Amino acid sequence: MRTIDWVDGAIEIIDQTALPGELKILRLHTVGELVAAIQSLAVRGAPALGVAGAFGVALAARVHADDPQALAAAVHRVETARPTAVNLARGARRAALLLPQGPQAVLREACRVRDEEIAASDAMAALGADLLVELCGTRPRLLTHCNTGGLAAVTIGTALGVVHELHRRGQLAGVIASETRPLLQGARLTSWELTGWGIEHRVAVDSAGPFLMARGEIDAVILGADRICANGDVINKIGTYAHALGARAAGLPFVVVAPESTVDLGTPSGDAVTIEDRGSSEVTPWAAAANPAFDVTPHDLVTAIVTDRRVIRLDRGELL
Amino acid sequence: MRTIDWVDGAIEIIDQTALPGELKILRLHTVGELVAAIQSLAVRGAPALGVAGAFGVALAARVHADDPQALAAAVHRVETARPTAVNLARGARRAALLLPQGPQAVLREACRVRDEEIAASDAMAALGADLLVELCGTRPRLLTHCNTGGLAAVTIGTALGVVHELHRRGQLAGVIASETRPLLQGARLTSWELTGWGIEHRVAVDSAGPFLMARGEIDAVILGADRICANGDVINKIGTYAHALGARAAGLPFVVVAPESTVDLGTPSGDAVTIEDRGSSEVTPWAAAANPAFDVTPHDLVTAIVTDRRVIRLDRGELL
Repeated sequence: MRTIDWVDGAIEIIDQTALPGELKILRLHTVGELVAAIQSLAVRGAPALGVAGAFGVALAARVHADDPQALAAAVHRVETARPTAVNLARGARRAALLLPQGPQAVLREACRVRDEEIAASDAMAALGADLLVELCGTRPRLLTHCNTGGLAAVTIGTALGVVHELHRRGQLAGVIASETRPLLQGARLTSWELTGWGIEHRVAVDSAGPFLMARGEIDAVILGADRICANGDVINKIGTYAHALGARAAGLPFVVVAPESTVDLGTPSGDAVTIEDRGSSEVTPWAAAANPAFDVTPHDLVTAIVTDRRVIRLDRGELL
Repeated sequence: MRTIDWVDGAIEIIDQTALPGELKILRLHTVGELVAAIQSLAVRGAPALGVAGAFGVALAARVHADDPQALAAAVHRVETARPTAVNLARGARRAALLLPQGPQAVLREACRVRDEEIAASDAMAALGADLLVELCGTRPRLLTHCNTGGLAAVTIGTALGVVHELHRRGQLAGVIASETRPLLQGARLTSWELTGWGIEHRVAVDSAGPFLMARGEIDAVILGADRICANGDVINKIGTYAHALGARAAGLPFVVVAPESTVDLGTPSGDAVTIEDRGSSEVTPWAAAANPAFDVTPHDLVTAIVTDRRVIRLDRGELL
């Protein structure tokens, strides 16, 4: 089962806002529907958004084949639907390069983006599992944040793909999934995927992570990235930085797993990234809220970055 | 309005599980009703629990005046209703010392416990406000965690009493209340109290605190304690430790405000404290959970402890 795909002339996605209660498939026929799905987080996760960006341009190319101005505007809407998501814009731009060759060429390119993300998940799972065994010995107990599973990609995901691979090898001793407020991607999505894979786990409130590390219940933290800056700073779901502080204080490895497409050498450091504030209503019905959706984890708190092509040991001074 | 009081032969409390939706007063006539109210967090907060412990023994003394065995068992039930709450047991034991003198003497002692907590709030508010201005200059922007207001005490509270006092002096520039999962004491209770006091504020998810500090939006963290160990380690609501790591990384003062009765010189350090796990159902309906209700903040992360009698500058090597 794929989180996002092109089926019979439209984009099909699993509606992640309906999980874990209901497995609902949405068919998106217009750029407007796709942008709404991206902004409501019905589809989310850096790799999945890359595929969504490419398919979105394929959709625009079919709908606006005879109106170059409308087409350019539609491509721009796809590209900018979520400002932090570098993969979204990159997937869209990559498909857009084929626009002069017509809608079929754009769609073929978008399908290649999808297939490459599937292959990238498998590569990250193998590299990441090897690294964790090297860092922690066999059978580590892991903490992960947000959702980086198949639901964030196309098939098995990034950081959660590594968890899947360790489990497959018989080398996993336990998983804590932090719930990931305000939208509970951990409690809703990661827990749903782990259950589907038959992996025993516990959910914890986000603020418990650092204490569980201090108490010796965790061997490593493994999570994804929305964007990796040129200096190794990691932009990821709010709470990533707090977990990195916990890992540092407890002397634990802090491993970031993300496809090479997440690496953004055009952004020198986290200071250069605008952090999306998603407003009060996600957080509480009773008051105004500060709701930064992402945070910046400075590179010196990151042990290693695992991509589909390489392992960068920031703790040993390796650079991107 | 008092959070807890003795009215016409019974304990009256504000039912904090009904806030902010409804202001509901519960009358508790038996030890069983009181213990249930404590365990469901209808009444909570270290100072309020001290008063609850004393009034609980007063209740037991009236109900079981003719049955010493039942009386002893009832006192024990009050004392042990929440294992982490040192004030609860201390309030209960203090009232229990008067048992040989009869129910009226016990009740008079319990009322003294209540009156002392009210006076202690006023003293902490003054000492804490002076300290924050000394540490941050006038008009600090504060982050607070959990609920330490009147709802945790009898009138204005501990850490939130300091916020109240700074506001009264015109020396407060902003407040972030962390929501405090899983039970949302910040989003529900602290926000409700601040609104009632006319203090502008924003709520944030717990995992955002350290990032808001790193981004320069906070000048100091101020919160309460359930128990302060002899070496200065602080036992408080889960998430306190994560916020302390954030404050340390950002170079911000981390100030703990709690009545002298919270200081437990009989407990050498945080390692000696059993942390209550409150089970999965508070956290998620979809999975098993790790749910430590409290955590341990090592004394070296604490700038200062403010009690009703003194300011202990741990950052300057002062001891309890």
